[in-house]
Amino acid sequence: MSARILINGQTPLDEARALHAGERGFHYGDGVFETALVRDARVRFLDDHLSRLTRGCERLGIQAPRRAALQADIERLSASCAAGVLKIIVSRGTGTRGYRPDTHAHEPTRFVAMYPAPPSMPWRPIRLRWCETRLGRNARLAGIKHLNRLEQVLAQSEWRDERIGEGLMLDTEGELVGGTASNVFLLRDGVLATPDLRFCGVQGVLRAQVIRAAAGLGITVVEEPLWPHDLERASEVFVTNAVRGIRAACELESLRWSETTVARRLGEALEC
Amino acid sequence: MSARILINGQTPLDEARALHAGERGFHYGDGVFETALVRDARVRFLDDHLSRLTRGCERLGIQAPRRAALQADIERLSASCAAGVLKIIVSRGTGTRGYRPDTHAHEPTRFVAMYPAPPSMPWRPIRLRWCETRLGRNARLAGIKHLNRLEQVLAQSEWRDERIGEGLMLDTEGELVGGTASNVFLLRDGVLATPDLRFCGVQGVLRAQVIRAAAGLGITVVEEPLWPHDLERASEVFVTNAVRGIRAACELESLRWSETTVARRLGEALEC
Repeated sequence: MSARILINGQTPLDEARALHAGERGFHYGDGVFETALVRDARVRFLDDHLSRLTRGCERLGIQAPRRAALQADIERLSASCAAGVLKIIVSRGTGTRGYRPDTHAHEPTRFVAMYPAPPSMPWRPIRLRWCETRLGRNARLAGIKHLNRLEQVLAQSEWRDERIGEGLMLDTEGELVGGTASNVFLLRDGVLATPDLRFCGVQGVLRAQVIRAAAGLGITVVEEPLWPHDLERASEVFVTNAVRGIRAACELESLRWSETTVARRLGEALEC
Repeated sequence: MSARILINGQTPLDEARALHAGERGFHYGDGVFETALVRDARVRFLDDHLSRLTRGCERLGIQAPRRAALQADIERLSASCAAGVLKIIVSRGTGTRGYRPDTHAHEPTRFVAMYPAPPSMPWRPIRLRWCETRLGRNARLAGIKHLNRLEQVLAQSEWRDERIGEGLMLDTEGELVGGTASNVFLLRDGVLATPDLRFCGVQGVLRAQVIRAAAGLGITVVEEPLWPHDLERASEVFVTNAVRGIRAACELESLRWSETTVARRLGEALEC
């Protein structure tokens, strides 16, 4: 992993010896994270990322780091970056053994790292697949980008075929949630629909931007429960991820989509 | 945290700088763990703990560490230990950014630590409470002791009252699963019942020992779906945890139990 890293504002002398042995992010996945795209020293949608991070901390009862400290870290790592991926992790901090957090005793861990940008790919529609791994439902954890990501790890372990651009996931009741690392949108009769994520899934930063931008383009958007059969009725399907942008889909098993107009219009509007 | 620690067989020079920045246990909770009781340099139910650890690794597609290496670590930390808690974490290891594991590329992280024993408490029945935090259902992750433990962290955050010995948790459908860090048993008409854990919860090491020991004492045990109303019909209730042993319950909101015979008999049989 070649990354530049700051942990609580300090560069570790050695990335192999960077984190505390009592780190609750390691022991319990007790924290939240963000991954953002950096271009020309600018973090795309930074305010949205920081807001979601703060909402996640609030939901988990983690003391969010001071925004000034976080922004100073981000500034240091992104200032000279032409293209990269910024990752922020905030955990509850270090502690003694046991699930129960110590009240007020935890100083949150602030982990900020810059990774190389993913290889740029030509804009072309991607193939999707269904994942067998399901997402458990728990409204208490829905929407936030917490560190309990085993379901996504298992889902992405299911395929190696590089021609597949993303895997779609259902929850344990069979409802459509999104991609393993993306949100999904589908166009039906001119209306853009996306899962409402009331039970699971992550409220994506680009998802929110797409919803706003679509309204600006006069496209009606609905957030509602969606099921696999809704994809069969869709004239256009695309997935969104803050790092990879908007990716139109052309194929999902026996389904085919040739329409990419709305994905392209939104991509132009959002420059992604 | 005062613990003696080995990471991949090495003592970190500084526990504040112990783990790799790319540790997948930290980024995704991508691993499993065990906590075991140590008395007089002996780890109680060690084989059971190591078997569950291996099963968990298999379920997650993590290469389990060699048992000889793990046992050497355990031996080093427990050899001179009169009383303590042994924690083992095995994660998929370190990696580049992204949920997808690199095939065969990961060397698992082997974290073994010895913590002080919990203060010994007089054997007396404990009070229980209901947790508001629910457990999401996902058969794919049920039973194993993985590192995605936010639900347990949130559940234990719900109370501070030290007179409460454990919180009971339901899954999102309202089914009884167990305690925040224990399994639950209840006696109805002379039959011992415990949740079957088909959708969530951890297959506890002491739970399995209790099931075996009960059979030896001529007590019928059933593993089946249980609901809160089953507690109302119970003549005796107890919870089990490998570190804290068998704890009879005396109270859960308006419910009271005065019977502790089966818990005591099992505790004597298992010396815990």
